[in-house]
Amino acid sequence: MNGRLLIHCHDRHGIVAAVAGFLAASGANIISSDQHSTDPEGGEFFMRMEFNFESGDLESLGRAFSQEVAERFDMRWRLTDGTAPKRMAVLVSKEDHCLVDLLWRHRRGDLNATIPLVASNHPDWANDVAGFGIAYHHVPFPNEPELIELLRGSCDLVVLARYMRILSGDFLAQVGVPIINIHHSFLPAFAGANPYQRAYERGVKIIGATAHYVTEELDAGPIIEQDVARVTHREPAETMVALGRDIERTVLARAVKAHLDDRVLVYGNRTVVF
Amino acid sequence: MNGRLLIHCHDRHGIVAAVAGFLAASGANIISSDQHSTDPEGGEFFMRMEFNFESGDLESLGRAFSQEVAERFDMRWRLTDGTAPKRMAVLVSKEDHCLVDLLWRHRRGDLNATIPLVASNHPDWANDVAGFGIAYHHVPFPNEPELIELLRGSCDLVVLARYMRILSGDFLAQVGVPIINIHHSFLPAFAGANPYQRAYERGVKIIGATAHYVTEELDAGPIIEQDVARVTHREPAETMVALGRDIERTVLARAVKAHLDDRVLVYGNRTVVF
Amino acid sequence: MNGRLLIHCHDRHGIVAAVAGFLAASGANIISSDQHSTDPEGGEFFMRMEFNFESGDLESLGRAFSQEVAERFDMRWRLTDGTAPKRMAVLVSKEDHCLVDLLWRHRRGDLNATIPLVASNHPDWANDVAGFGIAYHHVPFPNEPELIELLRGSCDLVVLARYMRILSGDFLAQVGVPIINIHHSFLPAFAGANPYQRAYERGVKIIGATAHYVTEELDAGPIIEQDVARVTHREPAETMVALGRDIERTVLARAVKAHLDDRVLVYGNRTVVF
Amino acid sequence: MNGRLLIHCHDRHGIVAAVAGFLAASGANIISSDQHSTDPEGGEFFMRMEFNFESGDLESLGRAFSQEVAERFDMRWRLTDGTAPKRMAVLVSKEDHCLVDLLWRHRRGDLNATIPLVASNHPDWANDVAGFGIAYHHVPFPNEPELIELLRGSCDLVVLARYMRILSGDFLAQVGVPIINIHHSFLPAFAGANPYQRAYERGVKIIGATAHYVTEELDAGPIIEQDVARVTHREPAETMVALGRDIERTVLARAVKAHLDDRVLVYGNRTVVF
Repeated sequence: MNGRLLIHCHDRHGIVAAVAGFLAASGANIISSDQHSTDPEGGEFFMRMEFNFESGDLESLGRAFSQEVAERFDMRWRLTDGTAPKRMAVLVSKEDHCLVDLLWRHRRGDLNATIPLVASNHPDWANDVAGFGIAYHHVPFPNEPELIELLRGSCDLVVLARYMRILSGDFLAQVGVPIINIHHSFLPAFAGANPYQRAYERGVKIIGATAHYVTEELDAGPIIEQDVARVTHREPAETMVALGRDIERTVLARAVKAHLDDRVLVYGNRTVVF
Repeated sequence: MNGRLLIHCHDRHGIVAAVAGFLAASGANIISSDQHSTDPEGGEFFMRMEFNFESGDLESLGRAFSQEVAERFDMRWRLTDGTAPKRMAVLVSKEDHCLVDLLWRHRRGDLNATIPLVASNHPDWANDVAGFGIAYHHVPFPNEPELIELLRGSCDLVVLARYMRILSGDFLAQVGVPIINIHHSFLPAFAGANPYQRAYERGVKIIGATAHYVTEELDAGPIIEQDVARVTHREPAETMVALGRDIERTVLARAVKAHLDDRVLVYGNRTVVF
Repeated sequence: MNGRLLIHCHDRHGIVAAVAGFLAASGANIISSDQHSTDPEGGEFFMRMEFNFESGDLESLGRAFSQEVAERFDMRWRLTDGTAPKRMAVLVSKEDHCLVDLLWRHRRGDLNATIPLVASNHPDWANDVAGFGIAYHHVPFPNEPELIELLRGSCDLVVLARYMRILSGDFLAQVGVPIINIHHSFLPAFAGANPYQRAYERGVKIIGATAHYVTEELDAGPIIEQDVARVTHREPAETMVALGRDIERTVLARAVKAHLDDRVLVYGNRTVVF
Repeated sequence: MNGRLLIHCHDRHGIVAAVAGFLAASGANIISSDQHSTDPEGGEFFMRMEFNFESGDLESLGRAFSQEVAERFDMRWRLTDGTAPKRMAVLVSKEDHCLVDLLWRHRRGDLNATIPLVASNHPDWANDVAGFGIAYHHVPFPNEPELIELLRGSCDLVVLARYMRILSGDFLAQVGVPIINIHHSFLPAFAGANPYQRAYERGVKIIGATAHYVTEELDAGPIIEQDVARVTHREPAETMVALGRDIERTVLARAVKAHLDDRVLVYGNRTVVF
């Protein structure tokens, strides 16, 4: 079994030794470890350890960890089974590039996830999604109650693969799992509608895309990944849209993969991506 | 003699033929040509032609061009002598990386310019600038009248090489030449003060720098060049500042070089950079 | 009608004026123009002009151009109809990422081409290709005669979308159309087999992909497009393979699009990509 | 005091716990930790730990570490004092961009080093180096005995900042400290002389630079850092040279900084850069 332990606490003397010592004593063999401290003197401490664990179950390990280590350092922590795929639902609207890319990567085995469903406010992608053997739900707008019905309890992650409707705070609360969105600009520039048109009008020489966790405030949640591409005066807004597709799908895929691999820790409105 | 002709007009049938025909008939040999149209049907047309011109003077050529071509197409145009260096003044405050880089490139012969003066609200860089054989003026803040006195008539371009004081509209009007600024963010994100600190707080994964012409509105003028660098959760704001220096000096140098080579046309709040 | 004129000749005085004048006199309205000279004094001159042409046919225009302009300047030239899609055949082996990406871009309308067939030495992608409504030919290796039979006369371009068999000089001659290959390294580094493994062993910090025209010499033909991605000591060769897929498909798509849009001129073993 | 512990051994159960436990028990407070394993089952294990150490001296800590931990795991290791600057000598020939950049970064305090001397087979940079208050030695070629005399015992690192003479194996042995070279291509492409000319002739679309440790085989030592820039058909070899300067100086500076901060472990012909 492949375990992953993620930790966040105030930085103090002896954390690494305590955690590594605990795992070694429990028969877990650390295969990778990464840590970050915002300031060794009184800052925040983050750590991700991945380990092989042949002898025993994660639940018992977690209970022991809580008592023997976590309480002492007042840690926020989680322990996951790296071999267990997460259930990832995908929402999409009129643009298919992020959707197709995620489904294709999933089919290749690049994403450690199952996809219980794809839902859309448009019927357009039913055949494509069926071709990948995945259920497609056409849920015309307004559709929050229907989406909540579909998503609640059926998934561990929702991916907005260019889903162009704003979701309410109530929706976020009811669905209750992390939601990753891809926004088609290098946030915080051009939050909101029509970013490529506004990028064109501002005359920028670089466009970008941003994958972030969704919060109640539009396009303001913790950023997981960003990337950019150069443009010149030659690219009208519609060419930026086409160039942007290649960035959007790659940025979203990287963010989703990082999340599925339990590499992302949220801290305030920022992320640590190990 | 190396001539450069820059043109901006409404796009119409026959512009290239008219300009190229005029130059050929005048004995000018086109050595490079670049053009851009926002829309061949009624858009804006931009062109830059560089040519060898052995037989005659640019002034007569300009007069003939005005009568024979420019008036017919209602062109905005300029004709410059590519062998004549522009006079470039540099303003700087507490950070020396852009200043040193420009002076070093100038010494190498990479910038077709003379540097009549460097001025600063701080005395710090007097020795360095003297080492390059260039006059250094320490003009403590508030200093607009003194700067205007220094700059008016003595330069064709002012470069703000991390000059951290806001210049008034009156200053821009009195100095009367283009002013290029380097801003330490990928505009329009983080316009104004402390961009790296704000980038850190927003948790972006990419930082950048922007060279733009200065207008009355702070950090809102036409963008000439931008570039970016990746950052992670590991980089505190002060490390971003250090990483940013390498981007800032390169972006500013590219923008200055493009301007000195007459490659930039301003159109509304945007630029065409040939 | 949208015409494209591509020209290559020795650089001389008056070429642009002659071509632009000819097109204007023929009623063609130039909508974009790009040119390059390796040296205005006796170098090689390249030009691409795109124009609207309402009144008449391209064939007559070409005959007139040949007599009135091309012979005088001893030009190599071609004139194509930008609205006519090229016929593009695709060969693939065991890796599907470039294939799926090209088919998906084609379906979106991003590639001005028809795809008469996909052929492979493996049966694996028959269903996928059928899903895009395109004929799939499984032609087990050794297969050159069968491939020649399929391709000769049926296509204007062959794309090797990770086709892993070496093609003979006889094959190239018989098929007689340009062939674009994607090689999974930044050529000339790691030409030949297993580039990612060799990149890992050399300890490079950057991997890449190269799209080039196929010539008899393996991985040595004119390069159309390249791109790279950073790697660290953390990436074993198999992770490089996965990262490389994203670069390969993008680089190949850009090269194919440039070719389909008649933007590529081959000169010796190099390309001009307008 | 700021200590750095670098470790390389075969991967085994319990290494992290043993090292972290030892440091905690010794009163050292780990402030950053990074590790890498080529394969948790029998691969190679690398680790770098940085720690505050108020109570005691590094030498005693090293002796204790050797006995209590290192011998048990058969480790190669080194322990350095992060507050002690390394002595860095710089060799240069006709190109000043890497030299000036290193001296400027050193003056800013970005490099934790002292610079006992700059030596060159040319007299050109004597004034510049003197301006930074550093000794300049003009040692005309052939000069190996003189250079060995200058360097042996006086430095902990030699940086070849575009030093264009090949150094003999005997030189490397006699000087006896790591030597970092900047090569003006993305190795392994274009090892040896005139890489930009050869890049131009091959028609690449990307140029690069590589910083590596010098070994007896030319341009074949372990790579520390690489970066690239895009070029097009428009850039002749001499423009590539100019573009390349900006990459070279940045790549070299990053590699030197990583070395000075004890972030580089050499393993076979590869590097781990933490």
